[in-house]
Amino acid sequence: MSDTLNKIAEVLESRKGAAPESSYVASLYHKGLNKILEKVGEESIETILAAKDAASNGDSTDLIYETADLWFHSMVMLAALGQHPQAVLDELDRRFGLSGHAEKAARSES
Amino acid sequence: MSDTLNKIAEVLESRKGAAPESSYVASLYHKGLNKILEKVGEESIETILAAKDAASNGDSTDLIYETADLWFHSMVMLAALGQHPQAVLDELDRRFGLSGHAEKAARSES
Amino acid sequence: MSDTLNKIAEVLESRKGAAPESSYVASLYHKGLNKILEKVGEESIETILAAKDAASNGDSTDLIYETADLWFHSMVMLAALGQHPQAVLDELDRRFGLSGHAEKAARSES
Amino acid sequence: MSDTLNKIAEVLESRKGAAPESSYVASLYHKGLNKILEKVGEESIETILAAKDAASNGDSTDLIYETADLWFHSMVMLAALGQHPQAVLDELDRRFGLSGHAEKAARSES
Repeated sequence: MSDTLNKIAEVLESRKGAAPESSYVASLYHKGLNKILEKVGEESIETILAAKDAASNGDSTDLIYETADLWFHSMVMLAALGQHPQAVLDELDRRFGLSGHAEKAARSES
Repeated sequence: MSDTLNKIAEVLESRKGAAPESSYVASLYHKGLNKILEKVGEESIETILAAKDAASNGDSTDLIYETADLWFHSMVMLAALGQHPQAVLDELDRRFGLSGHAEKAARSES
Repeated sequence: MSDTLNKIAEVLESRKGAAPESSYVASLYHKGLNKILEKVGEESIETILAAKDAASNGDSTDLIYETADLWFHSMVMLAALGQHPQAVLDELDRRFGLSGHAEKAARSES
Repeated sequence: MSDTLNKIAEVLESRKGAAPESSYVASLYHKGLNKILEKVGEESIETILAAKDAASNGDSTDLIYETADLWFHSMVMLAALGQHPQAVLDELDRRFGLSGHAEKAARSES
């Protein structure tokens, strides 16, 4: 899988049980699921606004930054609920048939 | 990078210029950026609702499915704006210092 | 209170228990709270996109239409949970001190 | 129209051109449309989370509070774009046929 997502998942796991003031992620866990989901929602709105601005002014710097925030906070959400991003990648693989013979057929549907 | 995200990016690229009725992704490109961003927004809401339900009933099946939808549609958004998911992973790497000596220091901030 | 909001609240109340195929609102009640909340989320995204477009092109037609959709579906949400829009207006009145002597003081804070 | 919404619209209008530090609304205008739209998005997410919690625990206090926040910030958005909430109420009236003879017919469609 992605080295990046895998390593972030390790960091997120290692933050569990840490003191809230020890890191940003530990503080999010401490505030609870609603606060984490609010962050997922906020980052999705900021991503959408950045996409509109990128389409207007041709600068995608903010778009990349906000999408990173969105993916990161969705990984915090997964970690808080005991899930690993590999399960999401597996679901995407399943849809896109990336494992072997099914691939061509699946791609023609996507 | 992630084989999965990379292969999806290739599929998304290959759909550009295709007839709208030839695939779901081609139909989204054809409908334009606002429709793609509406899908990003919808999937973020469905992810948030699935997370609340997973916390209540302990079943994360929908959560994984909806998060896959969210990541997928955010990749369609990136593709529509000429961006590759590797740029998002690079930004995440930069924050988490995953390339070499900076890693330990960066992790202690995260 | 607002005649408009009050009358819509009456319509929403009257739809309870109706056959799902008898009206749009009855079909939403039948699909359940998650579907109603997905609509609230979708309409908020569409409102945000319409606001960006109104700022770009100076045409607020879609903005008014989407905001009406957002307020309407948030009233469906309230009705589904046994609440009346008057409670929301009362909360707004409370904040803005619109009932008598408190008004001036409250406004200076807002 | 609604006295409450009308009076809030007056307050919002009166804040235009005021120093950013003079009030919350003046500070939002100063930060610009994206920040106002982020608030609309955040409040819609918080409303959705409050609705899920109200359905679980039977307490609608937060739901009313968050819906008031959502409506308020959507009125700030309208004001920032030179629109009045009456236009939204007019659109709702139009749909629900609340002005006279059309009412019964329109209601039977809603």
